[in-house]
Amino acid sequence: MKRPPLRFVEVGPRDGLQNEAACLPLAAKVEFVDRLSESGLPEIEAGAFVSPRAVPRMADSAAVFKAIARKPGVVYSALVPNERGLGEALEAAAGKIAVFTAASETFNRRNINAGIAESIARFKPVAAGAKAAGLPLRAYVSTAFFCPFEGRVAPKAVLEVVRRLRPLGVDELSIGDTIGRAGPDDVRRLLDVLLPELPVERLFLHFHDTYGMAVANALTAWQEYGVSGFDASAGGLGGCPYAPGASGNVATEDLAFAFKACGGSVPVEIEAVKAAALALRPALGHPLSSRLAALPQDKKL
Amino acid sequence: MKRPPLRFVEVGPRDGLQNEAACLPLAAKVEFVDRLSESGLPEIEAGAFVSPRAVPRMADSAAVFKAIARKPGVVYSALVPNERGLGEALEAAAGKIAVFTAASETFNRRNINAGIAESIARFKPVAAGAKAAGLPLRAYVSTAFFCPFEGRVAPKAVLEVVRRLRPLGVDELSIGDTIGRAGPDDVRRLLDVLLPELPVERLFLHFHDTYGMAVANALTAWQEYGVSGFDASAGGLGGCPYAPGASGNVATEDLAFAFKACGGSVPVEIEAVKAAALALRPALGHPLSSRLAALPQDKKL
Repeated sequence: MKRPPLRFVEVGPRDGLQNEAACLPLAAKVEFVDRLSESGLPEIEAGAFVSPRAVPRMADSAAVFKAIARKPGVVYSALVPNERGLGEALEAAAGKIAVFTAASETFNRRNINAGIAESIARFKPVAAGAKAAGLPLRAYVSTAFFCPFEGRVAPKAVLEVVRRLRPLGVDELSIGDTIGRAGPDDVRRLLDVLLPELPVERLFLHFHDTYGMAVANALTAWQEYGVSGFDASAGGLGGCPYAPGASGNVATEDLAFAFKACGGSVPVEIEAVKAAALALRPALGHPLSSRLAALPQDKKL
Repeated sequence: MKRPPLRFVEVGPRDGLQNEAACLPLAAKVEFVDRLSESGLPEIEAGAFVSPRAVPRMADSAAVFKAIARKPGVVYSALVPNERGLGEALEAAAGKIAVFTAASETFNRRNINAGIAESIARFKPVAAGAKAAGLPLRAYVSTAFFCPFEGRVAPKAVLEVVRRLRPLGVDELSIGDTIGRAGPDDVRRLLDVLLPELPVERLFLHFHDTYGMAVANALTAWQEYGVSGFDASAGGLGGCPYAPGASGNVATEDLAFAFKACGGSVPVEIEAVKAAALALRPALGHPLSSRLAALPQDKKL
């Protein structure tokens, strides 16, 4: 299997910080995004235009988008749940719009108080609006392997959601292991079902390292299926809302290091990503879960 | 490739505790080994009969061997550097003798003040003595992928060491990624060279998770080469003497979880191993690097 060059979407400023206990000051968030911009990452999900009551950590996303130093060539994307959020994202000049649903009905109802079909119906005007504004559209499908309420999720259930999303003009899908419980065999089972219907370049995988299998999963998808798109979070920020204290998103620097160790072409300066995450550490109030961030600062990579 | 049932050697009480900054009281070590004995693990490296000046953390190994509650069927092995150590190990009724060398000349000289050839010459009487006592013999080959001084280590250099060790009556080899820098492709390159000469059932792989690739490496060796033997350390104890603060041995519970997630038969109660490691945490003075140990205690696995 050909191993394509890697494409990373940095989700630390959104998925990472959204799930941290600490509420960072605006200046820290802006500095974080700016440092990530300088690291070579092609895309950074910089915020979410969601209810500040439901997601207080993202309440200042408009201010973040306004204050960051945009680096030419870098896409700054935003998560939006509805048309109101889309309006705010457009006003903030987001470069890509991301919507979200789940493969587990129960998870979706508990997470956003809507069934899968209802959440997808809500996307229609958002998708149309993003397209009208000339912006690419990403859709997250969370709990694509395991659900904290329903347990194992069948690959066919994920395929069904993907089939419903694609007619909306979704340019790329981010398929997530929300609770980090999937192993390489789960990845194989899902990709065997998805890839016959979904062009591999439209697929991103979004792994959490809760149980320590994220790097193995990503390498499996890349080496055996030619998947090139991966979400990751600098420093492994984020934690798991269903397992307080546990590891969050796979760390961007750990994933990049593993791909490079296997000859992958990775568009990121590992030391710069690590430094961006370490700069946040005092404000976060806990050590970073990234393996590379635990190495001494003078340790040559 | 057939995926054989897994064989684990628990090295936490030796390789783990040897590299911890904290010096644990005897009672804590004994309780640790006893808890591990009850977890289903088939073999526990319970101590080392080495110079207490060189390795102060292992100075009480004789007392550990004397005080533990030996569970029938469990092998309690000991690391020994020379005939004097062998004598102490026999007196302690160790069930297996382990010797050690490296694939990197510089590392071996810095670690034990002897070249590879000299260290192997020293094993000869140790091996003969172990055999005469009817005990199986394990040999560690460290820095089998990367050396902190020499950089990348050629697979042929490892093969050369293996070729020199086998005539001594070595029953099993533990091939170690001492600084945790190897990725799955490095594992493939080494196994492609070793396995044509070494029966796979005589091989154990010993991964450190310093850079976050240990689980991916182990799964690769198992799924693609049918390697079944792995060393691991409860809680991920141990750290890396060449990168203070970094992760140590791959955590037994994380490795077991990943194998089970891929349908592997693993002879260990994951919760019991995790509990054994967590009991040490207050005395260690730092969080465990294991992903599973970071999960809430009521989190069902």
